[in-house]
Amino acid sequence: MTRLTVIKIGGNVIDNPPALDAFLKDFAAIDGLKILVHGGGKIATKLAADLGIEAELVEGRRVTDEENLRIVTMVYAGLINKNMVAQLQNLHCNAIGLSGADGNLIRAQKRPLKAHPSGMGMIDYGFVGDLNDKSVDSAQMKSLLDAGFIPVFSAITHNGQGQLLNTNADTIASVIAVAMSNLYDVSLVYCFEKKGVLTDIEDENSVIPEINPGTYNKLKGEGIIYEGMIPKMDNAFQAIEAGVKAVYIGRSDDLEGLNRQTFGTRLID
Amino acid sequence: MTRLTVIKIGGNVIDNPPALDAFLKDFAAIDGLKILVHGGGKIATKLAADLGIEAELVEGRRVTDEENLRIVTMVYAGLINKNMVAQLQNLHCNAIGLSGADGNLIRAQKRPLKAHPSGMGMIDYGFVGDLNDKSVDSAQMKSLLDAGFIPVFSAITHNGQGQLLNTNADTIASVIAVAMSNLYDVSLVYCFEKKGVLTDIEDENSVIPEINPGTYNKLKGEGIIYEGMIPKMDNAFQAIEAGVKAVYIGRSDDLEGLNRQTFGTRLID
Repeated sequence: MTRLTVIKIGGNVIDNPPALDAFLKDFAAIDGLKILVHGGGKIATKLAADLGIEAELVEGRRVTDEENLRIVTMVYAGLINKNMVAQLQNLHCNAIGLSGADGNLIRAQKRPLKAHPSGMGMIDYGFVGDLNDKSVDSAQMKSLLDAGFIPVFSAITHNGQGQLLNTNADTIASVIAVAMSNLYDVSLVYCFEKKGVLTDIEDENSVIPEINPGTYNKLKGEGIIYEGMIPKMDNAFQAIEAGVKAVYIGRSDDLEGLNRQTFGTRLID
Repeated sequence: MTRLTVIKIGGNVIDNPPALDAFLKDFAAIDGLKILVHGGGKIATKLAADLGIEAELVEGRRVTDEENLRIVTMVYAGLINKNMVAQLQNLHCNAIGLSGADGNLIRAQKRPLKAHPSGMGMIDYGFVGDLNDKSVDSAQMKSLLDAGFIPVFSAITHNGQGQLLNTNADTIASVIAVAMSNLYDVSLVYCFEKKGVLTDIEDENSVIPEINPGTYNKLKGEGIIYEGMIPKMDNAFQAIEAGVKAVYIGRSDDLEGLNRQTFGTRLID
């Protein structure tokens, strides 16, 4: 099968223009078919503050009310997405900027109300989308790739009934990778703050080049992988179990090593 | 050749949610291949005002400085475009929301400086894009139509060197229609405030159903077509001369008549 690389970058790259420029150059140079998913960054938070729109937090999580949905739609799907596409076009990378609503490519469900842990009432996360294994229209996505386009997704999806939904970019990247693995040999790449999974959190040179489910359990048992990394790794291994060939975790500014297989930590079956 | 309809709606429809809903239903029901181009409306002006960003006017024309470009990119390419796409998807119309940067579909040139009529210095219109007969990549546009997508364009283009540009939506619709007329039988539809070209400006029932270059000259001679309508009509006949089969002018809420050829005024060769 043809290779397809799905890459996710977070807000930390978007908030740092020189890092973003460098990343886009490396992204443009990646061999073969590819899809980019980008997070949001601080621009939306700043715009909301400038407009006097307050962030509502429930249980430490931001609630996307109507006003905040307008903000993220403007910033993620408009400002960030279109500027990124224009820059990629300048690098002769035939990017096409999309939300999940476009071509009905990613359909989500509004997150259901959840009981508040206090027992008092329900939590409504607002216009937040949850994804499942039927969310991505892989045939439509393939038709874009076949036509020579390189999809660049903001983390905005829709519910198919006219409602846009703010959606987690890591999850979007993962469901795209899994859905496309019926048609392609898919690699899924997460760019984060570290050079990879480290044996010593203080030492950026202690990257573990490759982890499989067996070594993962061993590293967890030894306490080398812990806390925040565990859900990330669990999600990565779930994607692999669902058909993704490999998941890479590393720093965006090391991306040019991907073609040579020297990028970050590689998780495999 | 296959038929293709290119439809432009202006800000007046976008600013009126019930009118927009009705228009989108009628757009979804139009037979055959189609492309939508939408203008901006007052949301961008309001957002700029809320953020304390002043509109700079030169010779009565708005100048798009960097801050205003950010605003229109957010509002046109993000908020308006994505909400319109989500609504069309709910109507089972496979819309894909695009700017000219996406897929390099519409490439513009930054408007050159112009001598100020006072003779004092030059006018810089800022990040405004001018289009020409090579601006549209008709092969890439065809590949989207062939894949079953219905392109929905905001009036944001790019220069191919990473710069987004604010661009006139009427002109975008016209250059798309002309460029695609090598591949399709193209109709170009302009929605505006009147039911069509009227023999009596006070009487909405006095729509002239069809005008050709001969009758156009006669109507101008008789003073029935005058002032603001003349540049509109001249542009329409230029598009027809360049290959577009017919240009329709009428009210957005009459659009459902288009399939039956009862919409507005039809301009033909």
